[in-house]
Amino acid sequence: MVKATPDQPRLSKKAYDARSGDVRAALVQMQVQLKNAPFPVLVVVAGVDAAGKGDVVNVLNAWLDPRGVETFAFQEPTDEERERPAMWRFWRCLPPHGRLAIYAGGWHTEALREDPRSPRDLAEFDLALRRIARFEDQLTSDGALVIKIWLHLGKDDQRARLHELEDDERTAWRVTAEDWKSHRDYDRLARLSDTMRRATQRPGAPWHVIEAGDPRARNLAVAERVLVRFRAHHRTHKVRPVATKPRRTAPLRAAGLRRLLALPLDQTVPSRGYEEKRDKWLGKLNRTVRAASQARRSIVWVFEGWDAAGKGGAIRRLTDAIDARDSRVIPISRPTDEEKAHHYLWRFWRHVPRAGMVTIYDRSWYGRVLVERLEGFARDVEWRRAFAEMNEFERELVEHGVIVIKFWLHISKDEQLRRFRNREDTEYKRHKINAEDWRNRRKWAAYETAVGDMLALTHTRFAPWHLIPANTKRHARLEILKASCTAIETALAAKK
Amino acid sequence: MVKATPDQPRLSKKAYDARSGDVRAALVQMQVQLKNAPFPVLVVVAGVDAAGKGDVVNVLNAWLDPRGVETFAFQEPTDEERERPAMWRFWRCLPPHGRLAIYAGGWHTEALREDPRSPRDLAEFDLALRRIARFEDQLTSDGALVIKIWLHLGKDDQRARLHELEDDERTAWRVTAEDWKSHRDYDRLARLSDTMRRATQRPGAPWHVIEAGDPRARNLAVAERVLVRFRAHHRTHKVRPVATKPRRTAPLRAAGLRRLLALPLDQTVPSRGYEEKRDKWLGKLNRTVRAASQARRSIVWVFEGWDAAGKGGAIRRLTDAIDARDSRVIPISRPTDEEKAHHYLWRFWRHVPRAGMVTIYDRSWYGRVLVERLEGFARDVEWRRAFAEMNEFERELVEHGVIVIKFWLHISKDEQLRRFRNREDTEYKRHKINAEDWRNRRKWAAYETAVGDMLALTHTRFAPWHLIPANTKRHARLEILKASCTAIETALAAKK
Repeated sequence: MVKATPDQPRLSKKAYDARSGDVRAALVQMQVQLKNAPFPVLVVVAGVDAAGKGDVVNVLNAWLDPRGVETFAFQEPTDEERERPAMWRFWRCLPPHGRLAIYAGGWHTEALREDPRSPRDLAEFDLALRRIARFEDQLTSDGALVIKIWLHLGKDDQRARLHELEDDERTAWRVTAEDWKSHRDYDRLARLSDTMRRATQRPGAPWHVIEAGDPRARNLAVAERVLVRFRAHHRTHKVRPVATKPRRTAPLRAAGLRRLLALPLDQTVPSRGYEEKRDKWLGKLNRTVRAASQARRSIVWVFEGWDAAGKGGAIRRLTDAIDARDSRVIPISRPTDEEKAHHYLWRFWRHVPRAGMVTIYDRSWYGRVLVERLEGFARDVEWRRAFAEMNEFERELVEHGVIVIKFWLHISKDEQLRRFRNREDTEYKRHKINAEDWRNRRKWAAYETAVGDMLALTHTRFAPWHLIPANTKRHARLEILKASCTAIETALAAKK
Repeated sequence: MVKATPDQPRLSKKAYDARSGDVRAALVQMQVQLKNAPFPVLVVVAGVDAAGKGDVVNVLNAWLDPRGVETFAFQEPTDEERERPAMWRFWRCLPPHGRLAIYAGGWHTEALREDPRSPRDLAEFDLALRRIARFEDQLTSDGALVIKIWLHLGKDDQRARLHELEDDERTAWRVTAEDWKSHRDYDRLARLSDTMRRATQRPGAPWHVIEAGDPRARNLAVAERVLVRFRAHHRTHKVRPVATKPRRTAPLRAAGLRRLLALPLDQTVPSRGYEEKRDKWLGKLNRTVRAASQARRSIVWVFEGWDAAGKGGAIRRLTDAIDARDSRVIPISRPTDEEKAHHYLWRFWRHVPRAGMVTIYDRSWYGRVLVERLEGFARDVEWRRAFAEMNEFERELVEHGVIVIKFWLHISKDEQLRRFRNREDTEYKRHKINAEDWRNRRKWAAYETAVGDMLALTHTRFAPWHLIPANTKRHARLEILKASCTAIETALAAKK
């Protein structure tokens, strides 16, 4: 519980004006420094009802240069938001590097709004809090500065403040029946907020509880807290540490590599009867995907695999069976500069499908632990923690009811060579091969290790990897169709 | 009216397979070329019910490499869409340069869906068609390739097709009561579609009417039409013409320049009583903006003006009076690469506010006819047509009920010099000035001409310019507050 503060004299207007000039100059100075910093700043202003969240947000906006700030208040989710995992609406409101966002109420107030009472509600609440903690962990470990302010007001102070607002005709409209209800329920709500703050108290994103009884002192305390946190953070995060290429690639968990190497690759599929079989499965997939769509379940397919393993062709077979109006293929290559200025998962969150829709990622977030690991685009700590982060991302999709199907298309090194040569020799395939493909090929062993780690560390119950032997294209395609149908059917049968 | 086609034998499966192989190869070849082309391709597939829009969309998707295509079907608008001008939902679905989008039904089917009958409906319909024509004009004049396919089916063919679909258990679910209703209403709907096509028949975006009685012939005809249009377009649009800096800047319409030069600049505002006055207006603005928000009207502020004219400070005064949770300030500087790969208005459409919200643009689309005109970032034809395009953009905002308030902050050349020097001499202001500001200053006369043209050519009844003498900051700020209040009140009184 927050301790009650001893009675203090209120800050005089004169003292306030004197101090706020300095604070204001310091905040603008902060924004100038932030502009070139490789991180964003997130300021959450949450707290007890009538503690002045809105006022604080407005004062911060008045003190800051409005051109570098964005303010978000989360009302009822829109239907586009409701149809996606809970955290999607917050991911879409993240500022890029060099900018500051203020969140009135933050994601925390949203979680509290549900006002859990039954054991089932409480379990939901608990889940929501864990999602929030993970969300903030992901942001802070990526370098974001997260400043969470909790405005505290004792029960008596709250009552006094509500009366004060009601008595002034300019502010009377702000006091609603809802506010008085929450006042009567003060103690229970305080316990709930305590639980929330404890569950989301993270090393990189601690709560700052600020006494809000005296509005002027409160405003200054919030701004000063922001400045202190920024200065400390800027000192250590001014420059993004440079990543270096690994000298050699040692496996983190050899089980995955073993699983990969043990995969038999040279299945043959008789051409007789192949088309019939394929069409049977295409028809089945079509029906299954339609059933998922009718159940408002969305599907995310992830295609990873060696260069020339046949991802493109496999995706075409898949899209053949799906109504194009319900699906999108997202090819992942170099990120745009907007994407580079955000957390690496932001560009994938962007494309999470609405209810009943399909997104097919042609390459995916797993680039973090494959090409980014091996080319040194991500630092050691970054790709190492990515395994857990990607599992968390997928868990949130699945918890929301999204069906996640991941494929690794595996071919032998010899088969890749054959296909590369064939591409070079065929006029209309030549655009599909370039120097980079040959460069990657020379790092086959390192990639093999990285793939092994990926398979070992991100093969989860809720989003398992399907290893597809792909030396024989027909075999691969049938396997992909079968595995997809099974995955969707299982998910539909299990209810979300 | 579309002419009925004479009876022809249907295309055999063998002939179809033979030709579709070539078409498919050509389509993929097209995508390879498109990848590096400086324009996007938009394919609209619209037409009579049961003519096979969905089938055509799926066939195109199957023939194309799905990684370069996105398909959109517009259902009921989401609430985020409904709260913005009608075309916003289509602007957000535009592909960037080098990519292709397929629109099942397009924006045209949306317009037809309303099924206008009363004179009032018909007026709405007419307005919708004009909006569509303008939208397509803007895209095509920016270089986009817009291919509009209309699948035609005679009344008898439609009946036959509906029966055919119903008789096959795999497709029976696709025929709804709605379809039979539209069949009974065939003639009226045909006339309506005719009107629609005639109103949206534009030189750069003509309709291609394709007979859909024979599905195989139809699929090939659509694909071949796409290829023919692409080849012709690619030949002439392979390279984006380079813009050059103007040697001298002559006014297009001298009236604006005269208005600018005639503006008295040296008003004085006594400091006594100023704060009182300002607070009175701030209070009034606060109430007016709240009233607009309650009426679900949104507000767009545009701030343009000389460097150091005080845009930033004026915006701060404004945001002081507005709840930060309802407003966003969008500072416009260099576009991101995603923005560069779209129509220049796309980055402004992105930030159009939801119902009851506020967007303040700190610099705006008018950069097109100011810095882009003078620095040669836009070609002559581009900035010349921009005047009309920007008027159209603002008209769409206003038609939807958005209140658009545009300010030009005007200072004298001497005053600018004083402010530049002051910035250089003041530690905490130094970040606000750089070599570019001095460079722009040397082009004062050219800018003056460009501003004059802007004022003359984009001063509309629905979105007039407010010229603010800004040598005296206090005067400017009061004027901005007053003009804003008046503009909002007038708009609210006039009903949308």
